Amino acid sequence: MINFEALFKLSYGLYIVSSGDISKGNGFISNTFFQVTAEPARFASCCNKLNYTAELIQKTGAFSVSVIHQDTSADIIGRFGYKSGSDFDKMEGMKVRYGETGVPIVLNDAIAFLECKVIQKIDVGTHWLFIGELIQAELLDDTKEALTYLYYRQVKKGLAPKNAPTYIDKSKLETRESTIKAAKYKCSVCGYVYDDAVEKIRFIDLPSDWICPICGSEKEDFIEL
Amino acid sequence: MINFEALFKLSYGLYIVSSGDISKGNGFISNTFFQVTAEPARFASCCNKLNYTAELIQKTGAFSVSVIHQDTSADIIGRFGYKSGSDFDKMEGMKVRYGETGVPIVLNDAIAFLECKVIQKIDVGTHWLFIGELIQAELLDDTKEALTYLYYRQVKKGLAPKNAPTYIDKSKLETRESTIKAAKYKCSVCGYVYDDAVEKIRFIDLPSDWICPICGSEKEDFIEL
Repeated sequence: MINFEALFKLSYGLYIVSSGDISKGNGFISNTFFQVTAEPARFASCCNKLNYTAELIQKTGAFSVSVIHQDTSADIIGRFGYKSGSDFDKMEGMKVRYGETGVPIVLNDAIAFLECKVIQKIDVGTHWLFIGELIQAELLDDTKEALTYLYYRQVKKGLAPKNAPTYIDKSKLETRESTIKAAKYKCSVCGYVYDDAVEKIRFIDLPSDWICPICGSEKEDFIEL
Repeated sequence: MINFEALFKLSYGLYIVSSGDISKGNGFISNTFFQVTAEPARFASCCNKLNYTAELIQKTGAFSVSVIHQDTSADIIGRFGYKSGSDFDKMEGMKVRYGETGVPIVLNDAIAFLECKVIQKIDVGTHWLFIGELIQAELLDDTKEALTYLYYRQVKKGLAPKNAPTYIDKSKLETRESTIKAAKYKCSVCGYVYDDAVEKIRFIDLPSDWICPICGSEKEDFIEL
């Protein structure tokens, strides 16, 4: 038996993994970046094969990882987590530094960053695992806590996007809330659910310029569940 | 430049990864277990090649992962985190269930567990990355928080053992505490540091039957720094 609720007990951080160069860069919100060896310091980054960043990592042979903090803005999460960089330049208007390999490093809401050179690419199915050797690491802000997936889900009420390794089809979860009768509205971009039963204002009474607190999408992008 | 303090900003959970069978099982505390694909649900476990559990995973082609909670006892952390199973049977006296593949699943202090069949073994240097397909997952206790590496370091003051992917040689860290003059004593088994400057009782005044709060080692296993 597989109870998918058990999978929510695993702990992850949330990062912006970026690649490309000064002419065209891209990044995505990742929760699967982790150290795999200490000597030398090597890291693994798990990336959906369909992600535009995966293409750039293969082209440049390098990537950067920005560790973002708990109060990271909805704009940053929406921009890097729920939109595709094949449509627009995600680095435009961002505070970006270029690493030793030339990859962009997003500094907005970042408390630390790492830069890695890819030494191995592993096919694990729908995703690539890129193994990278650390060539640069910097601490930017030691006063703020790193954003974790748990905090994002519990406090920010966010969900994993469809391309994430940890995406869970909601139909697989035991629906403990099925008896609540108030209306719910789901953001069609990021999956965030606005639940009338727990909010002070009903969804239909929200102003028309209200935006999704997670990804910044407009009210009309929500669908009633 | 590499500032190793930046690496502490990455988030990890802490788990007991086990393998073997009813006649001989073993497990180790791991902070690098994570989902790599959603469809099908696949996970990666990073394991030092010298770990006895690595040998058992290769023999059985399967492993289990117990998600332990924040108040996990020092005995469990010491037993699975800082001792080798080649010397004694770590499963003896533990609350163990045997999975569909026959691997032991540690239930002590566990809030959830997963069982995976190995489908791929990747050499990343000093460690193996085992890619496993999920065959069983169970939620045991939804009331407790999962233990994270951050909590373990900040609240429990623990350090990564030498075989961990995230082990950091202390000489690489910027020693911000170098001006504090009180004596410090280090557990030679797990690396835990007892610092007179922050504790109520000086180390030398502790009773002789006092044990390391992290791994349960005896007072005489501590060395003055």
